Amino acid sequence: MEKNFSVEALASFTRAVFAAIGCSEQDALTATTVLLQADLRGVDSHGIARLSGYVRLWEAKRVNARPQVKIIHETPSTAVIDGDSGLGLVVAPQAMQVAIDKATQVGTGWVSVQNSNHYGIAAAHAMMALPHDMIGISMTNASALVSPTFSVERLLGTNPICVAIPAGEEPAFVADMATTTAANGKLEILQRKKEEAPTGWIQDKDGHGTTDAHALKNGGALLPLGGDREHGSHKGYALGAIVDIFSAVLSGANYGPWVPPFPAYVPMPTDMPGKGIGHFFGAMRIDAFRPAADFRKNMDQWIRRFRQSKTVPGAAAVLIPGDPEREYEAIRRQEGIPLLQAVVDDLQTLAERFSIPLIKP
Amino acid sequence: MEKNFSVEALASFTRAVFAAIGCSEQDALTATTVLLQADLRGVDSHGIARLSGYVRLWEAKRVNARPQVKIIHETPSTAVIDGDSGLGLVVAPQAMQVAIDKATQVGTGWVSVQNSNHYGIAAAHAMMALPHDMIGISMTNASALVSPTFSVERLLGTNPICVAIPAGEEPAFVADMATTTAANGKLEILQRKKEEAPTGWIQDKDGHGTTDAHALKNGGALLPLGGDREHGSHKGYALGAIVDIFSAVLSGANYGPWVPPFPAYVPMPTDMPGKGIGHFFGAMRIDAFRPAADFRKNMDQWIRRFRQSKTVPGAAAVLIPGDPEREYEAIRRQEGIPLLQAVVDDLQTLAERFSIPLIKP
Repeated sequence: MEKNFSVEALASFTRAVFAAIGCSEQDALTATTVLLQADLRGVDSHGIARLSGYVRLWEAKRVNARPQVKIIHETPSTAVIDGDSGLGLVVAPQAMQVAIDKATQVGTGWVSVQNSNHYGIAAAHAMMALPHDMIGISMTNASALVSPTFSVERLLGTNPICVAIPAGEEPAFVADMATTTAANGKLEILQRKKEEAPTGWIQDKDGHGTTDAHALKNGGALLPLGGDREHGSHKGYALGAIVDIFSAVLSGANYGPWVPPFPAYVPMPTDMPGKGIGHFFGAMRIDAFRPAADFRKNMDQWIRRFRQSKTVPGAAAVLIPGDPEREYEAIRRQEGIPLLQAVVDDLQTLAERFSIPLIKP
Repeated sequence: MEKNFSVEALASFTRAVFAAIGCSEQDALTATTVLLQADLRGVDSHGIARLSGYVRLWEAKRVNARPQVKIIHETPSTAVIDGDSGLGLVVAPQAMQVAIDKATQVGTGWVSVQNSNHYGIAAAHAMMALPHDMIGISMTNASALVSPTFSVERLLGTNPICVAIPAGEEPAFVADMATTTAANGKLEILQRKKEEAPTGWIQDKDGHGTTDAHALKNGGALLPLGGDREHGSHKGYALGAIVDIFSAVLSGANYGPWVPPFPAYVPMPTDMPGKGIGHFFGAMRIDAFRPAADFRKNMDQWIRRFRQSKTVPGAAAVLIPGDPEREYEAIRRQEGIPLLQAVVDDLQTLAERFSIPLIKP
């Protein structure tokens, strides 16, 4: 059962919670904006449903509400940023801004981040580049839930990549994807519905492919995009690995099985080789390559040609990456954001704890 | 039936062929080195087996043997290069060198290329970054053989991505992958063996998934990594699209269904929006982020941890991207490169035509 809540009411509540744990006014606003972009874009697993999870990380002293985010090394086109254990929701937009500033100066900017935490949806950061006539790139590592091809151990996170590309009259191309066959959020939906998972999504604790949606909780693992070797899982594994290396080996964060978990009750890995979790951001100025007007015209043609493609039987249309999320956003800005009762209960608990009035549907 | 030929003999023959169509001595050497890296690394579909195909493109006046490759726009970290219709085998290394030079200056370098042709294997170019203590990135678009999710039309090439990352004592991480479930070369092997293709590799002309390995030749299409929507093909489609846009929309080359075909007998598309095919290259200096020694140490730990992972039943080991190709290279440098009789016949025809002595097995 779901009820709809207005974006404004949820934003006001979320800001109050972040302020209550000690965030500055500016940081509370930034974190709220990033978090709610997930709800607006239909990625319910990464939005306000996680608010209490961030609070628990703060309680466990894994999140610093007053971080001094700083550049610890840089060149004209690169930087490494120390997030000072801040909320990823706050650290990531600052790092992306550094990438944009560097792109303004020398054509492109590339920023690797150490000592951060979960940063919400990748698209929230990559899309910051769009109003600057830039291509935006965002990726992050995450705690290990995914087994490489041929492995029974979980060694990689769902490690998403987002690439946001401006167009002209057409809306921007925004591809935001976990490097697994399916994101964990989709598996949780099947668990709630007591349905089986498709083949190629997960394996059990012994490394056999399974359709049991609960296998992940019972020592199994998510599978890299492709599912198995015959269907190209070594490519999904390589993509997840590249995200891990760019985000963490390049910055000095933790990588592979050593990435700190999001749930505060899960113990931290031992012998961690770096600091916090890692992100990687890129910004490329379109006119560092060719006049932006020419690029936009060709992007419009690209998008229209693909959209007009003849469809397979039963499909309504060929989509452009970002289409589904934009449709969600258009509806939800009008009709509000639907929240499950369990999420509302969770927010109610936060409201009582911090003496914040709970929003009404 | 295959016979083994020494690398040196094949290289000498290939240089003579490129010289015979008018390449400079330097360009003939470069093209040969790139082409034979495919054979050395076990990517037989992209090596000397294609030599006669390049010659036919030159005959059809689609390849300029004496290109004036030039930078037509640049910033400190970016460039667009016009390949002047040269062999991609020659244009691509020059473009990658520009990326490396820019990375030396400002930390990273990013180069988009228009007006080029087929560039061999992506890894040949990305790996140029490794001896410079840089991460190398290489991608290219290609003529349309792949249908986006929900489309029956072929709108994308197999559009490969390579990312090459240096390590310390361990060999480099080199992921080189088509953004489809399986590359066309693997399908051709099944056709020769008269075997069925796995599900998720191809669809027939009506857009139904099929295991008929000949469906591609009969109006069907290769499928993006993932195979179908339920298994994440929208992600493979997005990756192929990103390669297309970075390589061609950013440079002014042809994109989508307008990319010129490799076989010279296939007519050129009409109303082409750009020039030739497009590539995209990147180089990132490791010490633009952190001291190279620290990075190498962590990369070694990353690689060893993954390699030591417990395997699923029946698998010998968890591999690091680049392992299989490196094993091929070690063997083939010793034992030579095996060529099918059909390829030897093809080379014999070239030898007669250009009065070059044919190499012996």
